[in-house]
Amino acid sequence: MRHAKEYAEERAGTEPVAPAEYASVQRFYAGQMRLLDEGEGDAWADTFTEDGTFDQSSFAEPVRGRAAIAAAVRGRPAAPAGTVRRHWLGLPAAWRFPDGSVRTAYDALVVSTAAGAAPVIRLSTSCQDVLVADGDGWLVSHRYVGHDGQ
Amino acid sequence: MRHAKEYAEERAGTEPVAPAEYASVQRFYAGQMRLLDEGEGDAWADTFTEDGTFDQSSFAEPVRGRAAIAAAVRGRPAAPAGTVRRHWLGLPAAWRFPDGSVRTAYDALVVSTAAGAAPVIRLSTSCQDVLVADGDGWLVSHRYVGHDGQ
Amino acid sequence: MRHAKEYAEERAGTEPVAPAEYASVQRFYAGQMRLLDEGEGDAWADTFTEDGTFDQSSFAEPVRGRAAIAAAVRGRPAAPAGTVRRHWLGLPAAWRFPDGSVRTAYDALVVSTAAGAAPVIRLSTSCQDVLVADGDGWLVSHRYVGHDGQ
Repeated sequence: MRHAKEYAEERAGTEPVAPAEYASVQRFYAGQMRLLDEGEGDAWADTFTEDGTFDQSSFAEPVRGRAAIAAAVRGRPAAPAGTVRRHWLGLPAAWRFPDGSVRTAYDALVVSTAAGAAPVIRLSTSCQDVLVADGDGWLVSHRYVGHDGQ
Repeated sequence: MRHAKEYAEERAGTEPVAPAEYASVQRFYAGQMRLLDEGEGDAWADTFTEDGTFDQSSFAEPVRGRAAIAAAVRGRPAAPAGTVRRHWLGLPAAWRFPDGSVRTAYDALVVSTAAGAAPVIRLSTSCQDVLVADGDGWLVSHRYVGHDGQ
Repeated sequence: MRHAKEYAEERAGTEPVAPAEYASVQRFYAGQMRLLDEGEGDAWADTFTEDGTFDQSSFAEPVRGRAAIAAAVRGRPAAPAGTVRRHWLGLPAAWRFPDGSVRTAYDALVVSTAAGAAPVIRLSTSCQDVLVADGDGWLVSHRYVGHDGQ
């Protein structure tokens, strides 16, 4: 195990985002996740850059571009009728990189509730994004989602 | 599915809250939830406006006013002896409406741990609040809690 | 049950942290938790003050000082091979105390995923920290973690 100093050197040139920027990153994630869980897949895809990439450990290769990302989210297996699936995001860690991008790392769960049943955690993941500024908000230029237990 | 633009039009006249306001909304929720889980039901009811309403998908009709909300929280079925129940809130999405109110949407879980047992998720919900400013904090003027799986 | 006023008096002299400070506290926790889950135990111990204390309801006595805290985290029972354990933090409540410290209270879960299995919540806890300023960040001078269900 390494000390904070060495760990920091690995992220050489990076710095933590300022508090107001950190709040705006959280705000972005809260809205983005909501779009996904409300079935607004096209609007969700629009939170990626036009040429954004979306990769998962379960994908053979990354999905590239908004149109393909929207198609991928439309093509997801539907939950059984009466079952609600919700995405839960943990507090994101966020660093500003020398190229001006912000990189984040966070965990996410899928919580699934079938009619009349207790909720269960269906999936645990660890995610890494590259965000680029878009007005006073953000767009995802790259996302990687690693599934635990695979 | 719709694109971000159409989705935005549905929220015509609304705008995302500023980062500092977003942080203050989160701070409000962290404190409010804590009051509930620490058994401070009267203090929790005081985080609603005097004429606030609290509605749940499991209620026949909304509970109206602080006194009734405090009575409702006192009247909840107690957890079995030795069982701890905690409320978990997801990152809230928040929009400012033309009337000056802030409306939020967030998910919430109830995690329950019986003595000597593993924790289980007892309930998954999706919540919508109307918040009004109260000094440098917030009060809830309307809350709706939808229970998944019903 | 007590009203907000009485509850506030119990915290006499305290005040809620300002929104930007609240965001910086969240940013601290996001980074700290990440170090733990990435196996950076020494770097994680460095997020305590040199003479910081770390206490848990499962400990016979508090662990005192960074070196001992690092040793304690190294000495934790390892997860079975192929199992991923992640710490989840709820929204922290935070108060500034008259001595300048910030005290926080938050819940935390351990979510565990074995190879090929569904994730389970292994542990539910309630935590209380004393934080002291460290540049534009924070260090933990005291942490208490209470395990539910014991």
